[in-house]
Amino acid sequence: MHAIELRSDNAAGVAPAIVEAMVGANVGTAIAYGDDALTASLQRRVREVFEHESARVFPVTSGTAGNSLALSALCPPWGAVLCHETAHILNSEGGATSLLGGGAVMRGVPGPDFRVSADTVSAALDSVRWGDPHHSQPSVLSLTQPTDMGTVYPVAEVAALGEAVRGRGLSVHMDGARIANAIVSLGCSPAEITWRAGVDVLTLGATKNGALSSEVIVSFDDRASDELVYRTKRSGHVTSKMRFQSAQLLAYLDDDLWLRLAANSNERMAQLARGLRELGIGFVNRPDVNMLFAQVADDVATRLEEAGLLFYRIAPGLIRLVTSWQTTVDEVEQALGAFTRALR
Amino acid sequence: MHAIELRSDNAAGVAPAIVEAMVGANVGTAIAYGDDALTASLQRRVREVFEHESARVFPVTSGTAGNSLALSALCPPWGAVLCHETAHILNSEGGATSLLGGGAVMRGVPGPDFRVSADTVSAALDSVRWGDPHHSQPSVLSLTQPTDMGTVYPVAEVAALGEAVRGRGLSVHMDGARIANAIVSLGCSPAEITWRAGVDVLTLGATKNGALSSEVIVSFDDRASDELVYRTKRSGHVTSKMRFQSAQLLAYLDDDLWLRLAANSNERMAQLARGLRELGIGFVNRPDVNMLFAQVADDVATRLEEAGLLFYRIAPGLIRLVTSWQTTVDEVEQALGAFTRALR
Amino acid sequence: MHAIELRSDNAAGVAPAIVEAMVGANVGTAIAYGDDALTASLQRRVREVFEHESARVFPVTSGTAGNSLALSALCPPWGAVLCHETAHILNSEGGATSLLGGGAVMRGVPGPDFRVSADTVSAALDSVRWGDPHHSQPSVLSLTQPTDMGTVYPVAEVAALGEAVRGRGLSVHMDGARIANAIVSLGCSPAEITWRAGVDVLTLGATKNGALSSEVIVSFDDRASDELVYRTKRSGHVTSKMRFQSAQLLAYLDDDLWLRLAANSNERMAQLARGLRELGIGFVNRPDVNMLFAQVADDVATRLEEAGLLFYRIAPGLIRLVTSWQTTVDEVEQALGAFTRALR
Amino acid sequence: MHAIELRSDNAAGVAPAIVEAMVGANVGTAIAYGDDALTASLQRRVREVFEHESARVFPVTSGTAGNSLALSALCPPWGAVLCHETAHILNSEGGATSLLGGGAVMRGVPGPDFRVSADTVSAALDSVRWGDPHHSQPSVLSLTQPTDMGTVYPVAEVAALGEAVRGRGLSVHMDGARIANAIVSLGCSPAEITWRAGVDVLTLGATKNGALSSEVIVSFDDRASDELVYRTKRSGHVTSKMRFQSAQLLAYLDDDLWLRLAANSNERMAQLARGLRELGIGFVNRPDVNMLFAQVADDVATRLEEAGLLFYRIAPGLIRLVTSWQTTVDEVEQALGAFTRALR
Repeated sequence: MHAIELRSDNAAGVAPAIVEAMVGANVGTAIAYGDDALTASLQRRVREVFEHESARVFPVTSGTAGNSLALSALCPPWGAVLCHETAHILNSEGGATSLLGGGAVMRGVPGPDFRVSADTVSAALDSVRWGDPHHSQPSVLSLTQPTDMGTVYPVAEVAALGEAVRGRGLSVHMDGARIANAIVSLGCSPAEITWRAGVDVLTLGATKNGALSSEVIVSFDDRASDELVYRTKRSGHVTSKMRFQSAQLLAYLDDDLWLRLAANSNERMAQLARGLRELGIGFVNRPDVNMLFAQVADDVATRLEEAGLLFYRIAPGLIRLVTSWQTTVDEVEQALGAFTRALR
Repeated sequence: MHAIELRSDNAAGVAPAIVEAMVGANVGTAIAYGDDALTASLQRRVREVFEHESARVFPVTSGTAGNSLALSALCPPWGAVLCHETAHILNSEGGATSLLGGGAVMRGVPGPDFRVSADTVSAALDSVRWGDPHHSQPSVLSLTQPTDMGTVYPVAEVAALGEAVRGRGLSVHMDGARIANAIVSLGCSPAEITWRAGVDVLTLGATKNGALSSEVIVSFDDRASDELVYRTKRSGHVTSKMRFQSAQLLAYLDDDLWLRLAANSNERMAQLARGLRELGIGFVNRPDVNMLFAQVADDVATRLEEAGLLFYRIAPGLIRLVTSWQTTVDEVEQALGAFTRALR
Repeated sequence: MHAIELRSDNAAGVAPAIVEAMVGANVGTAIAYGDDALTASLQRRVREVFEHESARVFPVTSGTAGNSLALSALCPPWGAVLCHETAHILNSEGGATSLLGGGAVMRGVPGPDFRVSADTVSAALDSVRWGDPHHSQPSVLSLTQPTDMGTVYPVAEVAALGEAVRGRGLSVHMDGARIANAIVSLGCSPAEITWRAGVDVLTLGATKNGALSSEVIVSFDDRASDELVYRTKRSGHVTSKMRFQSAQLLAYLDDDLWLRLAANSNERMAQLARGLRELGIGFVNRPDVNMLFAQVADDVATRLEEAGLLFYRIAPGLIRLVTSWQTTVDEVEQALGAFTRALR
Repeated sequence: MHAIELRSDNAAGVAPAIVEAMVGANVGTAIAYGDDALTASLQRRVREVFEHESARVFPVTSGTAGNSLALSALCPPWGAVLCHETAHILNSEGGATSLLGGGAVMRGVPGPDFRVSADTVSAALDSVRWGDPHHSQPSVLSLTQPTDMGTVYPVAEVAALGEAVRGRGLSVHMDGARIANAIVSLGCSPAEITWRAGVDVLTLGATKNGALSSEVIVSFDDRASDELVYRTKRSGHVTSKMRFQSAQLLAYLDDDLWLRLAANSNERMAQLARGLRELGIGFVNRPDVNMLFAQVADDVATRLEEAGLLFYRIAPGLIRLVTSWQTTVDEVEQALGAFTRALR
């Protein structure tokens, strides 16, 4: 058996249609820094996909860039960004938001299922000394959709959270590193889960789902958009040959490719979870998208590794399994076979 | 005549060998964020090419990122970066170095041929109130090689400048957005024009010379390297699929592709300059590399535009012409033909 | 009964000896920005008081300045400062450390009695992904001594914490906004509770304890000292007439004035706590210094307010009482009388 | 002859009325951080003095703090502050504006008499690539009034500059470290030289003119005021015993004390300049306020130093002389006597 990749969707390759689009974009010359025809097309396409007349798109090359720049445009330097205590922006971006946000701080909020809830956000906001400059003022709620633990916020919950915090003067950011997986899982439209539910700025991930080097910020807020023109550039996130990022994104959005790729990873995870459940393995999260935290004894994990399964050990007795656009039915079958053997 | 691209080497496409390398890298899966085999190869390759045992390479996706991150690792927040008053870092990066450098400042230094000179740097350093915290302390000299106006620092001059400022406690950074063009023009080795001449950290450009989305920081200074591990990440400049940047760079350095591509742009510029000189056109700079600032009357410029020549007007009576790895002998011939007609 | 001030030691006035010293310093002229004779005297005096040969003193005008500048000199921009989850630097300085620290982050650590403990710090450090740039790297442990809740770290505990974190590469900062109260409470020397216990940089408060406008950073770390020369200036914290701050501090340290003033506030709190205990009132903290969180029913609190007692309501059923250098035996008697009446 | 202080008005002492006010403020207790009665009085008083209904006052403790915070509230992080190339903010504040302004940059503009002019500002603005994020966007014009070289902008010139830059979207900041000297020299009202002439935020110096530790930001712009509440705090510039700064400022503004103190320094300079002119000494600047750059041979300067005159040597053959609120008629006489003897 060749190695089966279940470590991260980050480890997957690039979808063929996206490679083709990049190769196809390599014709002639084009003006740099986003003033090209492909980037203009992408701008129009994003407005169509999100059914929003004035949304603006800013291609960047990493999720950290997308999140921290989006937050810097929503949060004043003296503000605080609220997010779940397990959020990527808080734990895995090296303080990018504090750097690019001019010293803004982040505050982790608890909540079941790795999601903030109306109650926990409310409690966090109630403890704020509003208007007291000694106290960092919550200015943005950042929701990770799906969460870093593979759970999903229902549309109504995003909308309720958005409405609640907006009443206290906060904006809403969505870290959508895997947003396509959430959209497929929820069966909603891109607009429903974002601006219609109160999201001001979205970080739309693509690299984990088949793109090569493109994430984009989609801003539904004109003031934030105006700032992002400058903020993206001066942090070094405006590439000269942006047309090749735009080409990726155009292919990604074309014919719902992004949703089809995400559907595959979600379905492969459903297939895997079904099989594991039958084998009696317990889960920490509900596998709503393409990620599973499974309770697997350490010696079993060792045997799985020896059998060629690639995955992460999170803690004693706990492993993380992630499927991708590239995972095949056959690979999942083989993985389940390996589990069966390892459990004997 | 189809349009002839002489606006910027930034507008050129991607070299076929680099596209092939990227497509070829799209096999199987690989761990993200630079822990992959291709990035490890690139690390080794850079040490060979620069004949340096401990050089470290950091792929980023824009020249602004490369420069401002390199400078942030060399300059304390209370320091000042000296550079020529026409330098890109001072005029065309939106203050990135002040942002990522924690409020560090930049100071333009004059100098003939768009280069700082021993005299002008010396004068700048003599006017400093050293050790006075009211006064930003010069900490880095940044040399643009070649300059933004197409002139080149000879090896001996870099070495002399390096030695002079090192005696005052400064480090040396080289903005090598077009370094391959300078190396070809000087006929020196990569080591000679960088660390052997006192350069601590190099921003090695590739995107203007045939790459798709890759610039790299090459650090010859261990302390700066240690910092760059963190600085690149927390500014959002560590991409998840870094292997595709590394693949570009490996192809770029392989078989001297970078020097061959640069040789073409330099030679096409020489061909163009020769022809323009014969037509009696004056130049502001000596066309040492692939860039020419030519004195062309505005009505002539208009006729050139009408004939399909793409170039920038810099000021009344002054245009900028840039060749690239992609410019052909035939295109230069056609361009010269257009000039001949426009001058009539 | 005139109003009795128990809100904060911040609300107290200036000690007469300190006023006299300032008035006395107003003779003739003196060079600005700390190059004066009084500041030089202060420098020598601090080395004597702390029994340290190379300690350096930096007068600033607020505790927030003292803490955030000290931390900025100890923590790299990509680092994290660990502190108790109730620490002033985390909750009441508006993110100053993230601003002046170039985007450094702070992480609250739990712990009983409002103090971090060997266990909680250890747990925090064990969960770190060391060397992973996605994860802010803990670089400083900041101890608030006494804590914002009036508890004190014993000398041995500071030393043990210092040793533990130093082994993981961290520095130690002490927020000593009320350090004199802790020294008096512990009966130790200034050296014992600071550098001999592993503290690298101390923020030594004076304003809460009788000074007018002076806090000082005392750095026992030469590298941090060298940075603070620049960091204090460029954040606007080097005053031109620094001699008047130095005069305050000299008087403050002279003849142990600081310890005598702190002894009064501690003793008045002991007197108050004794009386309240006799009245059956419960406390949240042990009144080791000059601060008490007392369980007082809301209607009782209202009657106390009506009787002219000034204090803060922290939560339903909880009030904060703080004595100062200025609080008199008689005022405490009167306060206790008010409590007796209000409880009826 | 005792030493005569002509180095800097920064070296002068504190005016007796201001000392008295501080001592007088040391009665009872008062709430910290500016929520006290004296600070409220100051707020009202500043509105009267400046004849402005919504001006807001922010006491800080250094001119650098005042300038950099004011500018941070007017200039976006991606903006540029224009100022004269000799301005204090550019040369003598260690890059504070870039630190507190989130990486904003400063650009020196030339101009005769150490002042920017309509022409030089216009030229600077004409060379801007407006809307291009590669280029830091000028957002504030900062005028130093009087300049660091002792020259003064007439009211009409401030108004004209203000109007010109406002048309290009810039705000206007005035660095009024010695604004009282300028007001006295111009014979105008505080309102005329500030907001009526288009100034949005003023840094009003007091420490050089008799205060102990107080400079204030006077903001005529509501949005900037709202930001300054947070910006002052989180940079550590809100002192706990702010009432003692407010007491200083109240005494300073009372009965025009500030103008009377400044009148003395201006008049003593006029007396000095008259005498020096009679002795045949040439000046670099017109002594409009209390500062003179005089052409004095180095051997003469040495003899003056030996005679007990305190002043700064700026360059070979050039010395700086500054009078203060404290300089007496007799001291100027003695200084002129020393010059007479030294010139023999």
